[in-house]
Amino acid sequence: MLDCAIIGGGPAGLTAGLYTTRGGLKNVVMYEKGMPGGQITQSSEIENYPGVTGEITGMDLMMPWPEQCQKFGLVHEMVEVERVVRSEAGTFSILRGDGKVDEAVSVIVCTGSTPKRAGFKGEDEFFGRGISTCATCDGFFYKGKEVAVIGGGDTALEEALYLAKICSKVYLVHRRDAFRAAPNTVERMRSTPNIEQVLNAVPDEVYGDAMGVTGLRVKFKDGTTRELDVPGVFVFVGNDVNNAVLKQEDGSFLCKVNDWGQVVVDLSMRTDVPGLFAAGDLRIEAPKQVVCAAGDGATAALQAIAYVDEKGHGQ
Amino acid sequence: MLDCAIIGGGPAGLTAGLYTTRGGLKNVVMYEKGMPGGQITQSSEIENYPGVTGEITGMDLMMPWPEQCQKFGLVHEMVEVERVVRSEAGTFSILRGDGKVDEAVSVIVCTGSTPKRAGFKGEDEFFGRGISTCATCDGFFYKGKEVAVIGGGDTALEEALYLAKICSKVYLVHRRDAFRAAPNTVERMRSTPNIEQVLNAVPDEVYGDAMGVTGLRVKFKDGTTRELDVPGVFVFVGNDVNNAVLKQEDGSFLCKVNDWGQVVVDLSMRTDVPGLFAAGDLRIEAPKQVVCAAGDGATAALQAIAYVDEKGHGQ
Repeated sequence: MLDCAIIGGGPAGLTAGLYTTRGGLKNVVMYEKGMPGGQITQSSEIENYPGVTGEITGMDLMMPWPEQCQKFGLVHEMVEVERVVRSEAGTFSILRGDGKVDEAVSVIVCTGSTPKRAGFKGEDEFFGRGISTCATCDGFFYKGKEVAVIGGGDTALEEALYLAKICSKVYLVHRRDAFRAAPNTVERMRSTPNIEQVLNAVPDEVYGDAMGVTGLRVKFKDGTTRELDVPGVFVFVGNDVNNAVLKQEDGSFLCKVNDWGQVVVDLSMRTDVPGLFAAGDLRIEAPKQVVCAAGDGATAALQAIAYVDEKGHGQ
Repeated sequence: MLDCAIIGGGPAGLTAGLYTTRGGLKNVVMYEKGMPGGQITQSSEIENYPGVTGEITGMDLMMPWPEQCQKFGLVHEMVEVERVVRSEAGTFSILRGDGKVDEAVSVIVCTGSTPKRAGFKGEDEFFGRGISTCATCDGFFYKGKEVAVIGGGDTALEEALYLAKICSKVYLVHRRDAFRAAPNTVERMRSTPNIEQVLNAVPDEVYGDAMGVTGLRVKFKDGTTRELDVPGVFVFVGNDVNNAVLKQEDGSFLCKVNDWGQVVVDLSMRTDVPGLFAAGDLRIEAPKQVVCAAGDGATAALQAIAYVDEKGHGQ
């Protein structure tokens, strides 16, 4: 019986592993099929993780984490988790991709979320080198420059407003001429002078050179095209919450999730199921920043320690 | 008119400053009378801030933060803030210790909390060198060793339980023979074999050498004493929430606080007053860890940016 099972090896999962083991839990496993580090390892530059400075990539930032977080006994299992289910006794079964089943007193789910790609030419090639899915993370790198935003939902408009404060101009490329976003947000976008709406248009191709993106060609409904000379393209066409491990055989979720599939937690990262915690980008209201996910992981870990102790395990 | 006023210069305040200014807010001031860095700068060793490794002190950890966080235009005012009040227009006045008044559209309060000292001989001398007020932070440094815990409230007992998982033995020194803590917590403490209760006793003196603490002498109600050969003493005799800046002239608080004076926030660090946010150790359910406070600061900053934008400022 594990004291704690941690699903996912990004900043939240790694920090949860550090705090649970350093806090005295004996049998803690972090399940992460790939290399730990998470989504941030795809970023070409990060300058807003407090305390770590210099021109570093997301990969550089995460480099020391696995060793630091495993120093106190955290075990890394390089296997996918298919599902977490709860037994009648209130403990958890971790159904692994290799067919084995582990049992755990507590579980911290840190599987994150994945921004959707829009599917245009050059998108994959220039991802992290001019194409971004996070204005908070990368907007500043385009200070005083022109950028394009792809999308018409709430996130796209909010991120366009965020970018309009930093960038000289924001082209908002939307495939329709009406917006799904909240009317108030649409109004704010319309009254922001340096946002230009490019409507009834879809991205056709992003192009560039060895240094990164130099432009975006959009294609209108009538077949005409337009070239936007932008070094940065921000894509907000949806987000997949990686909650599959919480999906039960009958299609329900192990714990409460909201309409977008984000896990409902309180300030201490407790879900509505005792012993089950969530941390990082898959929870409600996640700011999607490394430092926030790491803070979540620490918070959830301290709760898991107290929970395991209450249950009389972990001595 | 400031876009955002940040009160306090610990990990939460610094990170809030980094995120607000990097996110495009133009006029942001962080008020911190002393050197930025916060309470952690008193720690002699920290090994659980993810991504920063090696044998470093709290001071070392915080060293690069001010430059990194002020790189994007954050202004540091070395002045105390006496009070924050709200105008009828919904903006805030920052009443400074030097008699000046600044106005701000949004405010992030990051003034933290201060653990009380018990007031025994050697306590100040060995603080950070064997005397600690945080089991999560420092417990691991006494792995397999004996430690003493001073106090009889909920926090003292919970921290004793936390330490009992890591340390070979925990002496729980309490001045009475009954506990104020929750009955369930008292029960768990009593059934933990490696916690020894030292009741009707107060700490008399902590002593040691250049390397740190070597023992604690406690004094019983009947005048007798006992020497505990412990290298670590954890003091949990209460915590002052630094909420004075929120106290209004009539004695009420600017926003909702709980019975302990901690600021009530939601997952996005919003208080019940629009435009007023709290981050770090002064909020409810704060885990009191650097990475958590920093995560709070980033979260509050992103909310402040959106709020300032909504109000039509900050362009």
